Amino acid sequence: MPTSVSDPVFDLHHGGKLAVQSTVPLSTREDLSLAYTPGVARVCEAIAADESLVHRLTWVGKAVAVVTDGSAVLGLGNIGPRAAMPVMEGKAVLFKQFGGVDAVPICLDTQDPDEIVRIVTALAPSFGGINLEDISAPRCFEIERRLEEALPIPVFHDDQHGTAIVVLAALRNAAKVLDRKLSDLRVVVSGAGAAGVAVTRMLISGGVAAGDIIVLDSRGCIHSGRTDLNAAKAALAADTNSGGVTGDIAAALRGADVLVGVSGGTIPEAALAGMAPGGAIFALANPTPEVHPEIATRYASVVATGRSDFPNQINNVLAFPGIFRGALDAGATRISDGMKVAAATAIAEVLAPEELSTGSIVPSALDPRVAPAVATAVADAALRDGVLR
Amino acid sequence: MPTSVSDPVFDLHHGGKLAVQSTVPLSTREDLSLAYTPGVARVCEAIAADESLVHRLTWVGKAVAVVTDGSAVLGLGNIGPRAAMPVMEGKAVLFKQFGGVDAVPICLDTQDPDEIVRIVTALAPSFGGINLEDISAPRCFEIERRLEEALPIPVFHDDQHGTAIVVLAALRNAAKVLDRKLSDLRVVVSGAGAAGVAVTRMLISGGVAAGDIIVLDSRGCIHSGRTDLNAAKAALAADTNSGGVTGDIAAALRGADVLVGVSGGTIPEAALAGMAPGGAIFALANPTPEVHPEIATRYASVVATGRSDFPNQINNVLAFPGIFRGALDAGATRISDGMKVAAATAIAEVLAPEELSTGSIVPSALDPRVAPAVATAVADAALRDGVLR
Repeated sequence: MPTSVSDPVFDLHHGGKLAVQSTVPLSTREDLSLAYTPGVARVCEAIAADESLVHRLTWVGKAVAVVTDGSAVLGLGNIGPRAAMPVMEGKAVLFKQFGGVDAVPICLDTQDPDEIVRIVTALAPSFGGINLEDISAPRCFEIERRLEEALPIPVFHDDQHGTAIVVLAALRNAAKVLDRKLSDLRVVVSGAGAAGVAVTRMLISGGVAAGDIIVLDSRGCIHSGRTDLNAAKAALAADTNSGGVTGDIAAALRGADVLVGVSGGTIPEAALAGMAPGGAIFALANPTPEVHPEIATRYASVVATGRSDFPNQINNVLAFPGIFRGALDAGATRISDGMKVAAATAIAEVLAPEELSTGSIVPSALDPRVAPAVATAVADAALRDGVLR
Repeated sequence: MPTSVSDPVFDLHHGGKLAVQSTVPLSTREDLSLAYTPGVARVCEAIAADESLVHRLTWVGKAVAVVTDGSAVLGLGNIGPRAAMPVMEGKAVLFKQFGGVDAVPICLDTQDPDEIVRIVTALAPSFGGINLEDISAPRCFEIERRLEEALPIPVFHDDQHGTAIVVLAALRNAAKVLDRKLSDLRVVVSGAGAAGVAVTRMLISGGVAAGDIIVLDSRGCIHSGRTDLNAAKAALAADTNSGGVTGDIAAALRGADVLVGVSGGTIPEAALAGMAPGGAIFALANPTPEVHPEIATRYASVVATGRSDFPNQINNVLAFPGIFRGALDAGATRISDGMKVAAATAIAEVLAPEELSTGSIVPSALDPRVAPAVATAVADAALRDGVLR
């Protein structure tokens, strides 16, 4: 920790970024007897008789747990639950600011998937939804799947689906700006962790031809000839890279229109030089993009990053506050694929045609139109998909 | 749930009683880059290098989990985690209002002590303290003990110690009003659950002669001849009831000066008639006192209940907000016995001699002097007892 007295980041974080607030008056004895004993007993009895009332008569209906095990925090890696807390608090702040969602950061002192599933299942009566955060792949896939099966409330791993939703929204608008069709684009996804897998799946759902996507992990292109793949990567090998491209990122990028970097590494400029002209580079690693935007603009017409201090910020905050707001408002029991695609569409369509340009393919993270539009689209999709309580 | 549109309790509870609040500005891109990425990464790295910084650079230093398994909620019994939520929310509201403590209600979907210990241990990095609530005896004793051993932060089962602290404060002031000494009082504690055990221990710490206390469970007086006692009750049998009184509550109350009811049952008026005149009755069951105050006043000079709608409310809210405020401010690693006695003393001494009367032995739950006085006393005691980080 810097000893300087004027570091704005540390000054801001002193004492944390969150507080709990009472929403009821507590200034008289009468107030106390309504909000606490003896009045509260009747509310307890009503919920004991009909447990679904907990969503209406307590804050559970609007509260979300932001759960991490600290195993894959930002680009910092496995820094543990305590060092992860500033990020989870930040997430909770964003939930409130943009979605009016009351989010509680929960940093778990275990990285065992069985324990995490068991703990979050036991916590579930306290919350209306579970936002999984910064849990490393491939553990995150199993944890999310098991929690989705076990719990009657929405479970959403933001590093997967939040990122994927905003990438799909951004790519749709990039294609509009570039006057291209998603189905004609050759896409390279660098990184096959939580975000890489989900981005690939979402792009396929959104209209990119599966065979025209090449995904890379740290050992190079994922293709059906590889024998060192975990289950999630093996499934990608079966569906993507129909050309059977092998080798490194330079091989993958030869002639590609779009690069989506979700790897946290560095992509050499020489590899970018092989891309088809006039495409897009999304370098999303945080805090250090895989390609600096100044370099990326030499090889692509549209450049985006995950950072708030460059143009075209692919920021999950465009998705998760509205997604949970919509899911909670609708009484959704899960976040269906339809709700995710609806969120991407809503984000993309916030920008009117005259607002679109190579430097403006996604709304600003601060755009107040986004979360309400996403919430409405997600609630509508939940109704359509029949995933309501 | 009543269908009436004008039930004030249900109206108040609609949507819950809590919210999460951001304490940092989030209106500009610069705000975002300080509170979230990329700025937040440096805070994470600082905590990864020195985990104790989590108490200063996040809300952990002021956040407390209010944890229940719903097994012994108010006087309602084992109503489960969802029906317990209104009480836990109420508790959190009181924590904030009176102690400025940010409390999060956590209602667990398990009643297995091993699991509860494991889960709360895993949650601990997220909080600066753990307030256990409405967990049934004797499970609560083991759970609290194991968590105290496992965790480097304060663990406090409020049904035990909060109640005990306020009872000791009240009995001290009752003795003043009645011009009696604690060491001369014969005390009956009706109930040997969480509160009964802790009240008895605290009264002994506070100066009541152990042998002059008789504790009753549902089977009658606890004495050393009984063979049906759990570990906590067996320890009480060894220390209390030196006269070896056996039988029911009437036998126990014969000639007694003080009755402390923490049983949740009903105490027959005929039994009260055997008490020595001019004593005290604390009938603390919620929401229904063991003895109605109108009846109790026929047999005692000082009458107290746990309810806010009668005089002399023995309300844990006099204790827990200040206790956690003081413990968090001091950086205490546990709540020592010295801190508990200091809290009782501080509560009793809030009332100046001229404020004391038979109808005023404890400060009002709304008295703004209480929590700061308790917090200061508890922080001083933590320093004295050497239980600081």
